Amino acid sequence: MARTCLAVVLAAGDATRMKSSKSKVLHTVGNLPLIAHVTGSAAAAGVRKIALVVGRDADAVAMAARSGHDVPIAPVMQTERKGTGHAVLMAKDIIAEGYDDVVVLYGDAPMIDPESLRAAVTERSAGADVVVLGFRAADPTGYGRLIERDGELVAIREQKEATAEELEIDFCNGGIITFSGAQAISLLEAIGNDNAKGEYYLTDIVEIARERGLKCVAIEASEEDMMGCNTRAELAEIEVVWQQRARHRAMLSGVTMIDPATVYLSFDTELGNDVVIEPNVWFGPGVRVGQSAVIHAFSHLEGTVVGAHAQIGPFARLRPGADLAEKVKVGNFCEVKKARIGEGAKVNHLSYIGDAVIGAGANIGAGTITCNYDGQNKHLTEIGAGAFIGSNSSLVAPVKIGDGAYVGSGSVVTMDVPEDALAVARARQETKPGRAKRLREKILAIKALKMKSGS
Amino acid sequence: MARTCLAVVLAAGDATRMKSSKSKVLHTVGNLPLIAHVTGSAAAAGVRKIALVVGRDADAVAMAARSGHDVPIAPVMQTERKGTGHAVLMAKDIIAEGYDDVVVLYGDAPMIDPESLRAAVTERSAGADVVVLGFRAADPTGYGRLIERDGELVAIREQKEATAEELEIDFCNGGIITFSGAQAISLLEAIGNDNAKGEYYLTDIVEIARERGLKCVAIEASEEDMMGCNTRAELAEIEVVWQQRARHRAMLSGVTMIDPATVYLSFDTELGNDVVIEPNVWFGPGVRVGQSAVIHAFSHLEGTVVGAHAQIGPFARLRPGADLAEKVKVGNFCEVKKARIGEGAKVNHLSYIGDAVIGAGANIGAGTITCNYDGQNKHLTEIGAGAFIGSNSSLVAPVKIGDGAYVGSGSVVTMDVPEDALAVARARQETKPGRAKRLREKILAIKALKMKSGS
Amino acid sequence: MARTCLAVVLAAGDATRMKSSKSKVLHTVGNLPLIAHVTGSAAAAGVRKIALVVGRDADAVAMAARSGHDVPIAPVMQTERKGTGHAVLMAKDIIAEGYDDVVVLYGDAPMIDPESLRAAVTERSAGADVVVLGFRAADPTGYGRLIERDGELVAIREQKEATAEELEIDFCNGGIITFSGAQAISLLEAIGNDNAKGEYYLTDIVEIARERGLKCVAIEASEEDMMGCNTRAELAEIEVVWQQRARHRAMLSGVTMIDPATVYLSFDTELGNDVVIEPNVWFGPGVRVGQSAVIHAFSHLEGTVVGAHAQIGPFARLRPGADLAEKVKVGNFCEVKKARIGEGAKVNHLSYIGDAVIGAGANIGAGTITCNYDGQNKHLTEIGAGAFIGSNSSLVAPVKIGDGAYVGSGSVVTMDVPEDALAVARARQETKPGRAKRLREKILAIKALKMKSGS
Repeated sequence: MARTCLAVVLAAGDATRMKSSKSKVLHTVGNLPLIAHVTGSAAAAGVRKIALVVGRDADAVAMAARSGHDVPIAPVMQTERKGTGHAVLMAKDIIAEGYDDVVVLYGDAPMIDPESLRAAVTERSAGADVVVLGFRAADPTGYGRLIERDGELVAIREQKEATAEELEIDFCNGGIITFSGAQAISLLEAIGNDNAKGEYYLTDIVEIARERGLKCVAIEASEEDMMGCNTRAELAEIEVVWQQRARHRAMLSGVTMIDPATVYLSFDTELGNDVVIEPNVWFGPGVRVGQSAVIHAFSHLEGTVVGAHAQIGPFARLRPGADLAEKVKVGNFCEVKKARIGEGAKVNHLSYIGDAVIGAGANIGAGTITCNYDGQNKHLTEIGAGAFIGSNSSLVAPVKIGDGAYVGSGSVVTMDVPEDALAVARARQETKPGRAKRLREKILAIKALKMKSGS
Repeated sequence: MARTCLAVVLAAGDATRMKSSKSKVLHTVGNLPLIAHVTGSAAAAGVRKIALVVGRDADAVAMAARSGHDVPIAPVMQTERKGTGHAVLMAKDIIAEGYDDVVVLYGDAPMIDPESLRAAVTERSAGADVVVLGFRAADPTGYGRLIERDGELVAIREQKEATAEELEIDFCNGGIITFSGAQAISLLEAIGNDNAKGEYYLTDIVEIARERGLKCVAIEASEEDMMGCNTRAELAEIEVVWQQRARHRAMLSGVTMIDPATVYLSFDTELGNDVVIEPNVWFGPGVRVGQSAVIHAFSHLEGTVVGAHAQIGPFARLRPGADLAEKVKVGNFCEVKKARIGEGAKVNHLSYIGDAVIGAGANIGAGTITCNYDGQNKHLTEIGAGAFIGSNSSLVAPVKIGDGAYVGSGSVVTMDVPEDALAVARARQETKPGRAKRLREKILAIKALKMKSGS
Repeated sequence: MARTCLAVVLAAGDATRMKSSKSKVLHTVGNLPLIAHVTGSAAAAGVRKIALVVGRDADAVAMAARSGHDVPIAPVMQTERKGTGHAVLMAKDIIAEGYDDVVVLYGDAPMIDPESLRAAVTERSAGADVVVLGFRAADPTGYGRLIERDGELVAIREQKEATAEELEIDFCNGGIITFSGAQAISLLEAIGNDNAKGEYYLTDIVEIARERGLKCVAIEASEEDMMGCNTRAELAEIEVVWQQRARHRAMLSGVTMIDPATVYLSFDTELGNDVVIEPNVWFGPGVRVGQSAVIHAFSHLEGTVVGAHAQIGPFARLRPGADLAEKVKVGNFCEVKKARIGEGAKVNHLSYIGDAVIGAGANIGAGTITCNYDGQNKHLTEIGAGAFIGSNSSLVAPVKIGDGAYVGSGSVVTMDVPEDALAVARARQETKPGRAKRLREKILAIKALKMKSGS
């Protein structure tokens, strides 16, 4: 964008219908706060600065608004709620810094496409003073209608003021308005509050501009891009659309999803070519999966790197700091956290691997637990390449198992095991013939007693 | 309801298309039998008594019909199947007790709204003798059409007897009919069986009433409220609608669901404000979740209390009797059953906690198992406040770990551990240098032998 | 089919839009390769032979094409890509063997119904020389329109060549064409490539046949039956339709699914009467479930037999070779692989059972692990009828636990346990009063040091 553009993002709403203890714009879609979607989209469109009109949870909102881009964010506080026109004027000092264009965005409308913002600026550079983003509504009832004549926007007509003919119009106001930076303050200050609610409506800017002989136009975006969020039900609807788009993009790039509707992606999920994802997989933030890896059903990944040709799940939990090399297998009921696992190593069954480094080709038996926590501190477990950890072992960290070492099943390993050494730490088995029978009689007697006493 | 109303609920159907070994009305929606939805709705509408016309599985059906309300249920047996008109007359003695209104409901139509029943009674008190509940069908083909004239219902016309003009009508018979208690028996006994199937149809009551100069009216309910169930596919469709409504109610009350379509609620699920529910969570009957708790993906809860700000899952199983205080964490691959867990205690990884009491702030290490069962009896494990149970420990119940006690990783605890004591029960580690190498050679030799012998 | 029919299946496509490292027709729906759906359908319709036109991954495609039926498959290599007409001619030598009918199918259109193929052959026997399978498109844009006159097909008109009137036609070309075996080669060789892309289009056969005075007809199939697959997004759409049909069939046969949309079936899944399936269950290939079994939520089954009245899950993983008798229970976070489990035996919590035989009525405690793998070989664990395995035990295979034997909790069993014997293999507990307190102080000191050093 050669032109300079300021985005004013309204993010001060009370959002009582969310019934939430935090600001609406901090709720997330694709694991990213709504506000970060909006500022990220503005940044992608090339704005120079973002004036962030905040109220509740101002600091948290500003922090979220900064994530994922480098555009400067200037928070301005809105203490009173007097309508959108009034809200935008909170950023008056910033607008006065002088920008070619000012675009007003909404912190609770995260689906806005940078392309639509660029299109609005293109209209500005082609001579429009005010550009309103509209959409064709499947059901326009309740929306303000965009009244056009000879290619110009002549009014935004609210539902209750529309004529029968105007009510037939399905081209509706999406709320996002771009206008001349030079005229911005003058236009905004001309907005009055002579209406039922006594509020200052930003949409009045069209009428004011027309009175001044300025040119207003409306351009079209998709209805989904304009989705806003007032309740948690609407938040869920936005999440559905966002996920559908993210899944579709992934599939077209060469990822197989058996049932895409059940795969949950995050804003930053990276999936390699020929990755296969079975149903019911959750990708939290920060996951990167290498090519041809298979993520089986019922897996939950977050802050994790999965190498090419790896096999994950079903029922695997990969937590932040899991870093799996190529061809690693992590199987059912396994949890991996803050652990580097070398090429081809296997953690296949019911294991907890936390704060660990595992060498290439190591085999971690079923039920193995790294005992990494002493109640206050986390300690490291190191397992060498090609080591074999017998099933149901406990590795009490800090501890180091050398390359090619072998730990007998059921061992509690508290001391280091050198390379190629065998470690066993289990009790001798005592077998008592016939004793099970007597034990059973005793147990049954206890049961009988219990039933007698009614407990 | 100042008027006295009797509900006659038809629940004797054979339901061969369900291909089931139990009565259709015992199949569940939202984990509540269909019949209990119907009687619960009648009770909520204020009926005085419910005559329950039963056939197959009569006792189980009557028991289910009684759950969740206090309205008396009077079961009457239907041994022959001669149509709905005949079925209602099974309750003749009860009708004869004398009620202002009699409403006929269906045990396999669980979505009926108490509001619709109240609306029917209101029509009765305004002078209508017979009130039929109808709905606007998206596709009316196959339904009986409600023929109205001057605000009165003049006939219920079956599909095959309807004129071309009548087939255009989308207002259809929902089956639920309310009529005068005083005239009920006379009207019902006037129904004949002179038709193709030789059955007595309740719908004939409209024609009969009209002939006697009585006033019939139709009132409208939603099509979804009228959904009935003849196959398991239809049962699944009703479940979908029921769940959608339950989820929507929860979200509007302040619960966040990332993907509501994957959250399964029960009829009695209680979710506090600002609770967050990730995708794929199952709430069986009897779950109450406190405010701001987070239920992570792939969790399964039943008969459980979850305290405020608790963190559950992913992959957590909470079974009946799990009672979690505030800020408790139960993590992945953990099962909790009949256990009270104190504030802020953590059971984070691969543990089984059954028949236990855990004190506030205790930390239960990964892989801990309460050995609560001796083959016949269940025994109690008590863990004190602030205790630390090392990973992969077995706690052999009955056993008591005192406040602030510490159990070493991999221990099998069979005796009580006093307050602030340390207990370790594990074997000494033996490490044999170079032995892993020789063992590997031996193992490979076995493999070679096996391959040679082809096993 | 009394007539002899040859199916020519085109399976040589490059499928660049799949962005895949393997042939498109090897991608699966219902866990069966696309190509196997097509050849299976042809076989079910009664074709005598299948000429398989292959390119990429020819051997793997031919192998997949042979699975599940006995019709001979004759692969022919297509090295150049010159259009469908050219591709069919690759099978010229096979066509020349002499068949009454030749039907052209597509390896990437797996939903084709044998009934539609039979209907095409019926048209042939009734005098049609060329029979084209069409469908009524919800949105016909982009499809070739089937132009009919007096019951005959006169042309297949591509979108861009259609008149405004023809564009109104919603009857579209499904691509599957059946024609006279006697005339096949002559018709195919008459197809030219005088068009924009210089390709030989099979659809030209209609025009050519008409010029020769032959009779062409179009018959209708459903749009879903004609679904083809060019991208992974389309593959996912086909999977959705396939699963919906499979679930619906299962429900009508007497299976309850709470939320059918979340139950994933395979092409060969067998479910008995009154089986109940909770949400989120994955059936991989080779699963058979006996009547009245319950499969709880979040279960994953593959290559498994589940007996009548068994209870599986939630969170159960049954892998190939799991063979469960009646009334067996396999509970949460349990994995069973290559194991026969006798009637009424229980594996309820966090266990790994691999390479095992478990007797009737045995009870396997929580956290039990069969240690079946020594790094190279798998060994057998045998557990007798009525045996009791205490929680958190490790059974080091090969090992045999006799009928009625009892293994103490937390034991590592390395030697056989005779019938009715008691085996315990665990260390003596040492309890040190007050030591936990001192340990805690030490641990806190370490923490303080760590924080000081900033690690």
